[in-house]
Amino acid sequence: MKIGLIGLGSMGVGIAHNILKAGHTLTVYNRSKDKADSLLAEGAIWAASPRALAQGQDAVITMVADDNALQAVTLGEEGLLAGLGQNAIHISMSTVSQALVESLVAVHERHGSGLVSAPVFGRPDAAAAGKLFVAAAGKAEHITQVRPVLEAVGQKLFEVGEQPPQAAVVKLIGNFLISCVIEGLGEGAALAEKAGVAPEKLLEVLTGSIFGAPVYQIYGNLIATGGYMKPGFALPLGAKDNRLVLQAAEAHDVPLPFASVVRDRFVRGMAQGLSGADWSAIARLAREDAGLKH
Amino acid sequence: MKIGLIGLGSMGVGIAHNILKAGHTLTVYNRSKDKADSLLAEGAIWAASPRALAQGQDAVITMVADDNALQAVTLGEEGLLAGLGQNAIHISMSTVSQALVESLVAVHERHGSGLVSAPVFGRPDAAAAGKLFVAAAGKAEHITQVRPVLEAVGQKLFEVGEQPPQAAVVKLIGNFLISCVIEGLGEGAALAEKAGVAPEKLLEVLTGSIFGAPVYQIYGNLIATGGYMKPGFALPLGAKDNRLVLQAAEAHDVPLPFASVVRDRFVRGMAQGLSGADWSAIARLAREDAGLKH
Amino acid sequence: MKIGLIGLGSMGVGIAHNILKAGHTLTVYNRSKDKADSLLAEGAIWAASPRALAQGQDAVITMVADDNALQAVTLGEEGLLAGLGQNAIHISMSTVSQALVESLVAVHERHGSGLVSAPVFGRPDAAAAGKLFVAAAGKAEHITQVRPVLEAVGQKLFEVGEQPPQAAVVKLIGNFLISCVIEGLGEGAALAEKAGVAPEKLLEVLTGSIFGAPVYQIYGNLIATGGYMKPGFALPLGAKDNRLVLQAAEAHDVPLPFASVVRDRFVRGMAQGLSGADWSAIARLAREDAGLKH
Amino acid sequence: MKIGLIGLGSMGVGIAHNILKAGHTLTVYNRSKDKADSLLAEGAIWAASPRALAQGQDAVITMVADDNALQAVTLGEEGLLAGLGQNAIHISMSTVSQALVESLVAVHERHGSGLVSAPVFGRPDAAAAGKLFVAAAGKAEHITQVRPVLEAVGQKLFEVGEQPPQAAVVKLIGNFLISCVIEGLGEGAALAEKAGVAPEKLLEVLTGSIFGAPVYQIYGNLIATGGYMKPGFALPLGAKDNRLVLQAAEAHDVPLPFASVVRDRFVRGMAQGLSGADWSAIARLAREDAGLKH
Repeated sequence: MKIGLIGLGSMGVGIAHNILKAGHTLTVYNRSKDKADSLLAEGAIWAASPRALAQGQDAVITMVADDNALQAVTLGEEGLLAGLGQNAIHISMSTVSQALVESLVAVHERHGSGLVSAPVFGRPDAAAAGKLFVAAAGKAEHITQVRPVLEAVGQKLFEVGEQPPQAAVVKLIGNFLISCVIEGLGEGAALAEKAGVAPEKLLEVLTGSIFGAPVYQIYGNLIATGGYMKPGFALPLGAKDNRLVLQAAEAHDVPLPFASVVRDRFVRGMAQGLSGADWSAIARLAREDAGLKH
Repeated sequence: MKIGLIGLGSMGVGIAHNILKAGHTLTVYNRSKDKADSLLAEGAIWAASPRALAQGQDAVITMVADDNALQAVTLGEEGLLAGLGQNAIHISMSTVSQALVESLVAVHERHGSGLVSAPVFGRPDAAAAGKLFVAAAGKAEHITQVRPVLEAVGQKLFEVGEQPPQAAVVKLIGNFLISCVIEGLGEGAALAEKAGVAPEKLLEVLTGSIFGAPVYQIYGNLIATGGYMKPGFALPLGAKDNRLVLQAAEAHDVPLPFASVVRDRFVRGMAQGLSGADWSAIARLAREDAGLKH
Repeated sequence: MKIGLIGLGSMGVGIAHNILKAGHTLTVYNRSKDKADSLLAEGAIWAASPRALAQGQDAVITMVADDNALQAVTLGEEGLLAGLGQNAIHISMSTVSQALVESLVAVHERHGSGLVSAPVFGRPDAAAAGKLFVAAAGKAEHITQVRPVLEAVGQKLFEVGEQPPQAAVVKLIGNFLISCVIEGLGEGAALAEKAGVAPEKLLEVLTGSIFGAPVYQIYGNLIATGGYMKPGFALPLGAKDNRLVLQAAEAHDVPLPFASVVRDRFVRGMAQGLSGADWSAIARLAREDAGLKH
Repeated sequence: MKIGLIGLGSMGVGIAHNILKAGHTLTVYNRSKDKADSLLAEGAIWAASPRALAQGQDAVITMVADDNALQAVTLGEEGLLAGLGQNAIHISMSTVSQALVESLVAVHERHGSGLVSAPVFGRPDAAAAGKLFVAAAGKAEHITQVRPVLEAVGQKLFEVGEQPPQAAVVKLIGNFLISCVIEGLGEGAALAEKAGVAPEKLLEVLTGSIFGAPVYQIYGNLIATGGYMKPGFALPLGAKDNRLVLQAAEAHDVPLPFASVVRDRFVRGMAQGLSGADWSAIARLAREDAGLKH
């Protein structure tokens, strides 16, 4: 297939490699071109703008930072929509607001093109390894059309429903639950340490028993080793996703007390100079609150 | 080995069956004798008191409701300690306070006997199937002495450390983290439902990707099906464990904001007539807060 | 002075009466004209649009529901700015976002007119009685220019600073603290009642001792009598102000844990059918959580 | 009247002075005698034990640190009860648990003596000035009997009810609400400062309008000046009262979300070395969370 990809952050680059590896023709665009170097060396084609990129593609993937960035690369004179063919599909993989996805559904309907919302679970190393989990929502025929691409980038594809916003909300809830795992582990690890149990030992029991899931292994390890200063998913992005889930919840009149606690952690992290850290650094705040040094 | 077991609630009965199945000689005691019927039919012996039960055993397991019950069956004229031999081991499997385990260490030291704190993870069905996870702490020689029993009741044995209170605190943190999973899933499922995503679909994505751990499967299923009115672990016991982890945390000067949120849920559950429900019923409160009917 | 007033909700009408009473010439505008009837009978003049209203005034007061409403009546072809004289002052009394006030400062600077941000504390009865508290911020000469009006509507005028956004943030913090009083009293009254102390008795002690402030008298009385179903300040407006203070706090990287708790109350109130109630109805949720009936 | 007073902390000494000033005969007891020096100079009599102190008194006041201290000076061989006459009254002024007051009611009933629970609102300077607020509960005839003493120490006496525990719970709720004022002001002052409003200006508006109560003046001033390192009421005592109100609330199945937030502040304060500070130092934690320096 002929695929375009906009957004070459640490996630986008990993996804791009796997699309090339699967034998598709890939055109890429990014605000700063240097991020594309390794991909161009592997055979990817460079496009000068989202619009130029979209021309002639079967599908265009967007993997950008937030709502504003997605709007910027999609709409406007140089946006992808201006170049996208009527039967082509826009695969939106970014974690963005449910509201924006709703509005893009309408935009694509008018344009004649299709929208598949396909946010992914997994950190940059999973993206590089093609081990992402993809949660896709959109019309059945649209998903069928792009299934080879979705399968190329992930180890597993979930079809969430026929409405693109459904996948957006599943992704936001998923990230919310990851943030809850981080906060819970952060609190628990602080208590363990002060009560004379090494965090590694606590984790061994947890992940070896009923908490044996990647999310506990990954974040447990980051917390036990204090490795949260090297960002896999930067704290301001975590703060953004927290804001998005609270907004979605407010739009649907759903209180989320845990998200509120986590919100206060992220805001404090921003205030205390952790903008450059991984979002798991909120666990460091739990340690501080317990009087523990880093 | 010759084993005594005090406490035949739904957890204790399951444990007892597996000890018998492993070929040990088992003597049992419970406040009300009728709970012992099936075990006596399988060859267990009845004792008239904890003291009588303890006499001549290699090890005595206690699996009772709370701190008060553990003190009652351990200390006093008719307590197990009065009958326990000097080289025998007390295996405390109940979820109790770190402070009580600390005091029992001293009690056993004076008595000449050993204490192994060995709380378990798993619900009654896991106890019946011998599939519990056992987190044990105590002197290495004590654990070695009772290893066959610990292995008979669980699918996996974790050695947490040489100090019995270490296992108590690991168990409290584990239960705290389960309560966080319940609360998080309850909030997330309510949002999913109001945003047009079936909770089952949400769970399929979560447990099929990075949340693929028993704790998400078990509680996710209870929440998605609204099955929390049939108690596997009753809400007042959840409230008790929440109180214990907050007490342990306070003793060590560790704030636990998530445990505080969960505390308010449990207290409200008690006030609103959910004392007979499973502890996962706190997720029902999250549903109510979102204006959803049961 | 020649004064225009836009927005004849329960607060605006009270303010209008006091401006007339002080002898000023008053022109009014409201989306629905019937709210103006009593004022026209007292000598107020009707204007067909914000633009028409603004022409020839010394000052124009806006007292509207939210950011959107304030933008609508201020900007655009029929907005007040299109009619406002270069030396006239816009007195913004609505509770709106700090960000909007900032942008209006720039707008007025370009226009040559002045902006005084002058939000008020007090409920409709205080507005009717001219007993509001006015917190004003703006250039000293602008405040001097409109002082007679500010003094006509309030019992006391506070000059907060030279930057209009300063008054906006003081107002948001004030409303945040009122919401904290409501939540605290709601929790305390529920405990008092279940512990055998009549809420009236609790309030007598509190307001007769160190809590002797109007905010405790007013909201304590609403809570003790369950009078929160008759809105003086509707719950959705409370929810809006909570959102605004959380936004301002996020913009400045300030966590507000109490505001987060209150946020969850408001969202739940919206979900559970309390949109028509007074914002003090969040205290009813505290009662419910304690298992108390209304 | 002949009055005994046990407990010469900063509150007890102030109370003692005002009893002497009112012309009563005062006997005092304290764990360390040096605290009594100034009172003995004014004519107070020293007693060697609570029991010795209680003999021949019309009433004995206890003003001690916590439940344990109150039990210690009341019960046992050398406790006040052993010396107290059958028609004498025990006036318990300490902030203690509702549960302890309940048990003391029974103890005094068996003894033939009376119990008046009379906790006070006010800090040491108010105690010294005789400006405390006294919330008393007990049988009407008991309160009548000791009214002159209660009036000597306070500026105002509230009769809360006929059951001594009622006053205990009113006091706990009062202290809970003060802690809410501190937390709310701490959060609000941090936001004000980062948004360019001096905390003093914020306070001027608040206390000059609808928040014009001593509790806002006192704690607002402590927060605005950062004066919380000089303890009027030490943080561990605040933590204790928070624990007591949460316990009372749990006993009555009443969730207190605000008390839970404040609890986490106090626990963190203990962990971070603020045990020697005033309880208002939790506002310093709100500042820290916003990235502000002390």
